Amino acid sequence: MTIKALTFDVFGTVVDWRGSIAREGAALGRRLGIERDWNAFALAWRARYQPAMQRVRSGEIGFVKLDVLHRMNLVDTLAEFEIEGLDEAAIDDLNRAWHRLDPWPDVVEGLTRLKTKYILVTLSNGNVSLMVNMAKRAGLPWDAILGAEVARHYKPQPEAYLITAEMLGLQPEECMMVAAHNGDLVAAGKTGFRAAFVSRPTEYAADQDFDIAAENDYDFAADSFTDLAQQLGC
Amino acid sequence: MTIKALTFDVFGTVVDWRGSIAREGAALGRRLGIERDWNAFALAWRARYQPAMQRVRSGEIGFVKLDVLHRMNLVDTLAEFEIEGLDEAAIDDLNRAWHRLDPWPDVVEGLTRLKTKYILVTLSNGNVSLMVNMAKRAGLPWDAILGAEVARHYKPQPEAYLITAEMLGLQPEECMMVAAHNGDLVAAGKTGFRAAFVSRPTEYAADQDFDIAAENDYDFAADSFTDLAQQLGC
Repeated sequence: MTIKALTFDVFGTVVDWRGSIAREGAALGRRLGIERDWNAFALAWRARYQPAMQRVRSGEIGFVKLDVLHRMNLVDTLAEFEIEGLDEAAIDDLNRAWHRLDPWPDVVEGLTRLKTKYILVTLSNGNVSLMVNMAKRAGLPWDAILGAEVARHYKPQPEAYLITAEMLGLQPEECMMVAAHNGDLVAAGKTGFRAAFVSRPTEYAADQDFDIAAENDYDFAADSFTDLAQQLGC
Repeated sequence: MTIKALTFDVFGTVVDWRGSIAREGAALGRRLGIERDWNAFALAWRARYQPAMQRVRSGEIGFVKLDVLHRMNLVDTLAEFEIEGLDEAAIDDLNRAWHRLDPWPDVVEGLTRLKTKYILVTLSNGNVSLMVNMAKRAGLPWDAILGAEVARHYKPQPEAYLITAEMLGLQPEECMMVAAHNGDLVAAGKTGFRAAFVSRPTEYAADQDFDIAAENDYDFAADSFTDLAQQLGC
């Protein structure tokens, strides 16, 4: 079967969440007149991400969009870093830092080239408004915003992939997941999706020791979106 | 409140379904060597649209995407016009004529201008793949594909509008419905949406006698998407 749609993981694969959240944190620190390790702050906020989604996946709580989970996690992270003096509106604004993440330098050119041959769709655990606002700010040319909120299942649950393919009117085999995370590609592959690994070796740290390279024999492995575009003849 | 998103009706407002379906029917007639009134065929197929959705709205059947309703209606319309000899694949292909509708001439320029200031979203009863394929073919620069399939409610049910606004992270008052149909704008308005009427006076016929003009005091009334863009300062 021909690949018709590329479905993208976003946090880490498309955007540099660590650098972007650290940048927003540093700006906040200047406003509040406080000093913290904002890189550590970004990592600590992100460390609460999978456990929060796991509460939804396990059925402990009903589906809520990622903005809601991010905000609960932010309140806990602010307490952990002893950051005080933010009112509710300021916390809301900081929470929307995830709507303002910067793409890696190859992304806009790569997506623009890939769009000439494929349907480009977000298949992220981020919610619709987060993806729309991010795309609008960064100029990401998606054809559709799908993923966890629309499927009402967080990756790596199979429904997240299968409902996305179904909404595109495609067989899973006509969709290729693009991600910097081996776990995402393995889960997508179990549902029938093709898989392309794109290496983002500094997502978590300069000396990151996991998800550096493709750990399985995926359909494609690339080191940037422009590299992927070239391999796909775009 | 400031308007942040424009949500668009699509069939009739963005695209000329009557002319496009008649064109596809005429091409089919040439292949089959039959003569029919293909404009009447388009109207007859469309006449089965609201009754089919009403079965979903009323709860008689569960939510199914518009492609499914269109196909059931197509089988009945083919019988009505005594068109025979199409196999299942040919019927499927004709059903996807709704994925290949042509936009009105002002649409691409108008949307491109409107996109500089607003989030542009489909809020159609058409399903996601129909909207994605149509946009890809016609170059419609949507920021997101939402509407009935994602909300799992057909317009004019209030959930179709309210779930769309909620997914955009916006208050209904921050969204403006753009449509050529007074009924759609009234229903949207009841949920808090702003409203812009765009006149498409030949949607159903050259001598159409309804939905020619705005029948209420909407926020905007325009005769094209470029006119609307100008009124909105884009």
